[in-house]
Amino acid sequence: MQRLILAIVAVLVLGVYSISAAQADDAQPQVVKEFKVYPIGYVRKAEGRTLIVLDKKYEPALLGVDKLSEIWVLWWFDRNDTPEKRSILQVHPGGNSGNPIRGVFATHSPVRPNLIAITKCKVISVKENVIEIEGIDAFADTPVLDIKS
Amino acid sequence: MQRLILAIVAVLVLGVYSISAAQADDAQPQVVKEFKVYPIGYVRKAEGRTLIVLDKKYEPALLGVDKLSEIWVLWWFDRNDTPEKRSILQVHPGGNSGNPIRGVFATHSPVRPNLIAITKCKVISVKENVIEIEGIDAFADTPVLDIKS
Repeated sequence: MQRLILAIVAVLVLGVYSISAAQADDAQPQVVKEFKVYPIGYVRKAEGRTLIVLDKKYEPALLGVDKLSEIWVLWWFDRNDTPEKRSILQVHPGGNSGNPIRGVFATHSPVRPNLIAITKCKVISVKENVIEIEGIDAFADTPVLDIKS
Repeated sequence: MQRLILAIVAVLVLGVYSISAAQADDAQPQVVKEFKVYPIGYVRKAEGRTLIVLDKKYEPALLGVDKLSEIWVLWWFDRNDTPEKRSILQVHPGGNSGNPIRGVFATHSPVRPNLIAITKCKVISVKENVIEIEGIDAFADTPVLDIKS
């Protein structure tokens, strides 16, 4: 009976230990580095208008954006955020099989290892945490990562 | 004795279950979203030359870059990757206290919530996994995230 208890305890303790060890490896990768980016807001579209609605906490970061005629908007190709699509390295540009194949780094394809998109946008107005822009080649509800002059 | 076995098993099974549950939450965050980006290579500088040296596995993604005169290089302000610097929302542009304070989204300050930088670079040559460029406003050994036409 004591052997049975020992066996049960050993199996379960080893199980817990292996899970903890896996977590520790995830927390401190030694070679493969990664960086984290967070949505600062989202693209919203309604009644023919295009808005960038930022999280309220970022409102102070908009000071002076109303004085700019154009901004760079960096956003995330969230529809393509799968390991499979992020591993595509060559495409027919424009999704047109008639175009000769190219490396994704020679294109602005929406599939690429890091799904960052950049669009230059005309500023119409800035009110509190909301920028109205003339338009953007991103779907409604796309996560926005950054805005730059 | 049976009660003791049951107690040990119950405690250990609950322990394993709670760790598994925590992992499941990490895998599918419900509210706070984050995206991961990975270095595709690094800026290297030597003997007056500036290179972007990609990880070998990304070499196929360069097909056609040799036909471009200019590329957009996206890189990571890795020197500023601390929670403190990523929470700065207003700056004196150019680090000059004489410049009126501005929101980081009205500037191209190297401190901002998501530390993505963009530079347009002239292409000199492409050989295997290495692009020689005319220059870049990034330090040597800076992580590169993306290259676009």
